[in-house]
Order: sequence, then C-alpha cells, then structure tokens
Amino acid sequence: MSGAGPRASEEALIARYFAPIAGDGADGLRDDAARLTPLPGHDLVLTADAVVAGIHYFPDDPPDSIAAKALGVNLSDLAAKGASPRGFLLTLALAADWSEDWLAAFARGLGETAARHGCPLLGGDTVKAGGATLIGVTALGEVPAGAMVRRQTASAGDRICVSGTIGDAALGLRLRLDPVFVGSLDEAARAALTDRYLRPRPRLALAPVLRRFASAAMDVSDGLAGDLAKMLKGTGLTATVETGAVPLSPVAGRAVADRPALLDVVLTGGDDYEILCTVQPDRLNAFQAAAAEVGVPVHAIGSVAVGEGAPIFRDADGRPRAFASAAFSHF
Amino acid sequence: MSGAGPRASEEALIARYFAPIAGDGADGLRDDAARLTPLPGHDLVLTADAVVAGIHYFPDDPPDSIAAKALGVNLSDLAAKGASPRGFLLTLALAADWSEDWLAAFARGLGETAARHGCPLLGGDTVKAGGATLIGVTALGEVPAGAMVRRQTASAGDRICVSGTIGDAALGLRLRLDPVFVGSLDEAARAALTDRYLRPRPRLALAPVLRRFASAAMDVSDGLAGDLAKMLKGTGLTATVETGAVPLSPVAGRAVADRPALLDVVLTGGDDYEILCTVQPDRLNAFQAAAAEVGVPVHAIGSVAVGEGAPIFRDADGRPRAFASAAFSHF
Repeated sequence: MSGAGPRASEEALIARYFAPIAGDGADGLRDDAARLTPLPGHDLVLTADAVVAGIHYFPDDPPDSIAAKALGVNLSDLAAKGASPRGFLLTLALAADWSEDWLAAFARGLGETAARHGCPLLGGDTVKAGGATLIGVTALGEVPAGAMVRRQTASAGDRICVSGTIGDAALGLRLRLDPVFVGSLDEAARAALTDRYLRPRPRLALAPVLRRFASAAMDVSDGLAGDLAKMLKGTGLTATVETGAVPLSPVAGRAVADRPALLDVVLTGGDDYEILCTVQPDRLNAFQAAAAEVGVPVHAIGSVAVGEGAPIFRDADGRPRAFASAAFSHF
Repeated sequence: MSGAGPRASEEALIARYFAPIAGDGADGLRDDAARLTPLPGHDLVLTADAVVAGIHYFPDDPPDSIAAKALGVNLSDLAAKGASPRGFLLTLALAADWSEDWLAAFARGLGETAARHGCPLLGGDTVKAGGATLIGVTALGEVPAGAMVRRQTASAGDRICVSGTIGDAALGLRLRLDPVFVGSLDEAARAALTDRYLRPRPRLALAPVLRRFASAAMDVSDGLAGDLAKMLKGTGLTATVETGAVPLSPVAGRAVADRPALLDVVLTGGDDYEILCTVQPDRLNAFQAAAAEVGVPVHAIGSVAVGEGAPIFRDADGRPRAFASAAFSHF
C-alpha cells in the first residue's frame, strides 16, 4: 500500500467498517463465504453493476451518496425484475489515495442504504485498485418461482409506462458539469436535480405490482430512449412514445420550458433509476391504481407495435424527434 | 473509450464474447438480471473475489490463465465451504488498452473453466476501468441446509490437514519475478511451478468429503502460515505444525533441498488454492480414505490446541520457525 503512514490491514478495515453493517449468514465477514437460506418456492434474481470513480461518479461526491448509488443502481435492477432484495456482496477496489475518513463515511452510507431497503451486506472483497476506485455490487433478490419480470417479453399493443419523473438526474449531472447550463433555476431547484443525480431511489415498492401487471420491465439507467430501444431490440417490435406524455418534475418542466433543447437531455441522459414497463391496455387503469396504492405514480407514455427499428418519439406536433445520441453509455 | 479506431459497444461485446458462455437463466445476457432456481432444502454459499492486473496477476499472463485464476480463486472458496457451484457473475473493468483479441481469449478461457467445473456465467457488468483491468467474480454454490463448512469452528485436539502440495505456486511466482531465484531446476520443473501459479485447481471434488469430515475449513490463498492463523484467530485456540509434514511436490522438495531458505516461501507465499481443514483425530483415517476415493491426497500436518497466539511451525529439530512475513497480502 502506498500513501502516508501505516495503513490498517484488509482484515482490520473489514472488522472496523464492514462487519458492523453485515447481515445474518455473513459470520461477521470472518469467513470466505456467506450462507443464505432461500425462501422455499422462490427463484433467486441476480444482478451485478459496478461504478468507477471519474466515470460513474465524481471522486469528490459525498462518500455516502457514492455508496447509495453503488448499491441503489443494483436495487433498481431488482425492483424492475419484481424482486425483493435478500442481500449483496461488495467488491471494493480502493485507489492509492483512499483515507480512513472516506472509508468510514462510505461504509456508513452503505449501511444506511442497505438498512433502508432491507438488503444486508453478506460478503465481498477489498483490494488495491490499479488506478481509480471501483465499487462493484452483486445483489440477490427473490421472486415467487417463475415470476421474474423479464426485459424482452412485451407484446404488440401493450402500453408503455414509466414510474416517477424522467430526466431530473440527467439535468443534475449537466448542472454538476456546467453550473450555468440549466439557466435560471433557483437554489432549491438545483439542489433537487443534484440530489436525483447523486442518490438513486430504487423503486422497490413497485416490485410486487410489476409482478402482477407488467408484461416486460427494466429500469431506466442509460436514458429512456436508449433503454426502450434495448427493451424491444430483436423482438420484431417497435414503439411510439408521445414526448408530451413523459412525466417531468416541476423543476425539469421549468428547465425544458426555459430551454427546449434540454428535452433531449431528459429523454436520453440516463441515471433516472425509474421503472420502464409494458402493460396490456385493458389492465392499465388497474396497474396505475395498484402503483398509486404503494405510493409510486406511473404514467403511460406510448404503445408497443409490430415493426423493426428504434422507437419513435413524437413531439406535440406529431413529428418524430431525432436525438443526437440515443443512449448514454458509460463504457 | 480511448484507443485506436472504433470499438464495439458494451452490448456487442457481451453478445459476441460472453453470451456464448452464459448458462440457463441468463437469457443470453440480454436482461439486467439472471434467474436461478435454488435446489430445495439447500443453502446458498456466496463468495466474491477480485483480481487486478499488476497486483494479482501479470498483465502479460496468458488471457485464458487470467480467466482461470479469476474464476478459480472463487471456486476454491466454494470447495472449502463444502459447496457445489451453481453459477457466477462477472464484473469486468477493462483498462483503456484492451483489445478484442485479449477479450476473445479471456472469454474462451473463462468459458472453459466454467464448463470444467459446472459453474455457468449468469450475468455481470462490463465497465471502463479508471486504470488497470479488474476482474471481479461473485460465485454461488449450494450445500444441504446447514451444512456449510465454516472457518472458525475447529476444536482443541483436531488434526490439521492440507490437500495436495503446498508452495508450488509461490515458487512459480518467485520464478516469474526472478528466473534465477529457484536455482538449478530444469525446464519441466520450472514449467510445473509456473503452471501452479497461473492456474489454480479448485478442489471441488473434495467438497462433499469436507461436509462429512471437516470441523472447519478454508482455502490456502494467502500462505499456509497466515491462513492457519486466520482460521484460529480470536477462537482461543492455537496450533502446532510440523514443517516436515507439510506435503511438497517433488519439484518444490528439490528446490527447498537446494536452498533451505525457500521453505519460508513455501509456507507463507500463497496462491496454493489447496484446502486447509481440521478433522477430529479419530476420524482422520476415514477422512483420508474418503479424500483418496475422490482423487485428492490430504496430509495431516499438525494439531489444534487451547491457547492464544499465532500457530507454531516446528522444524525437524523441534525448534519453532520464525517467518519474516506471516502472510502475503495483496492489499
């Protein structure tokens, strides 16, 4: 380990910062593996997503928000699949300039996010990075056997829905990159957008509702336009979306009214961590009512149709919208 | 992505190199998550270990051996816990200078190791590294409910056993770092040691035998001396090991005969991926017979005793051996 002064061993770091947030079956992280007893009659749902400093987050973001993002993006995948979280494993590759203060704040934030969503730390690995810090999470969830909601199982005629509001995180990122970009927003509006960028809100409350109603689902991580294209690619289906139906927060609505070109950022920018799903048209009302009951607004924004090619986003005047970049890629 | 010329998208890479080695439940890696139906009456065993270029392996190691190591070190943990593999998730953070040739060879090697051990790829994430390539694996195995073999459950009087031979990989690493270090070994001997360093051989055949006989087990990854210390730390137990009883391969035996100081490398060097376990003394013969039946030699090297402090390694003259460094740490 390079850096100033002696550093704690891997075992000491784990005992100090991660053992306190570990769940049952993790044996206080003193073993090489964790035990998990699956719920009878259920399938496991497994997902892995990593975030890298300087690519998926800014190295000077608050450590607790980095932890919330690293775990939250995985919980968002579980939510979209209709799964309830059971636990996660953490692969933490630390850059040479890590500090104990950073690690303590990161672990505290991780523990808070884990506790909030009932997803305990079960194990993992801490290594020295060969460059920037990387935080890899593998999350495990459960669904009743056969009930995982899949990505590419929509049917022609299904209505396309999204939860919450779209574009806030992408505007928050733009704001972070260029504080004057988003025009005349006040301090509170800027703080709201930044917070959406920093702290994903995995829609786990919607998971059981998706199992009942969704013909297909995924979370919106790489931008609505690109993710909808992924949902339908290779299935012989395409879609039409009314851009005016895409739900915007009051703040995002104001930003777009100020500068209409920002609608492209909203529709393609990513980091939303909302749910994109399809529902049979005659079940749309019941789906929206069930979602409202668990406190999650869902809006219909378009329809699936037979056809090839990328989904068409139509503006209020009926004309298709062309995007400079259909999906944001971190890769 | 930096580098010369256009690069394939993340989706294209996954479809080309990883979808062909993906298992059932992975949906050809076109979804955000995989399904796994647990075996009724079984517990899951979960482990995560990452390897980093320049730290855990040499960037110019053969790509298939890097893959064999990244997956093998996790399978070794499953074996030590008595678990049968069910599948794994891969977090691949690629350095800026990755090439499609490297990735193709890596994926081929990963698929071969996965197929050999019945542990299919279920999902994962591919990201751009902020420096050196990192390969993170989360492996899932299963044991009959309650049967996971734990690390810190040895009893006073238990015999300490190791599988196979100890020190070959550590000597292989020394040879890699300094070709003249290991003295007068011939080409075949050098190749054998190098191969042990490059390609862990997870002792999965021993898993069911460990479930029947081992009171505690872990794999030897950070050196026999340090790992035995971890097995007993904080349990109120210590151990005595006869260094002369530690099984050496003929090649390692010759190297140590040539240069007795190399015994320290053998006992503390790591990367063995053999099994270290404890067995009740009256069950030792039955354990060795059952292990021989599955083709894995196991040797008794010492005993567990009540006491504090690090295990004592005694030379043939009965004197305790002092190590310059008790455990190799990659951290």
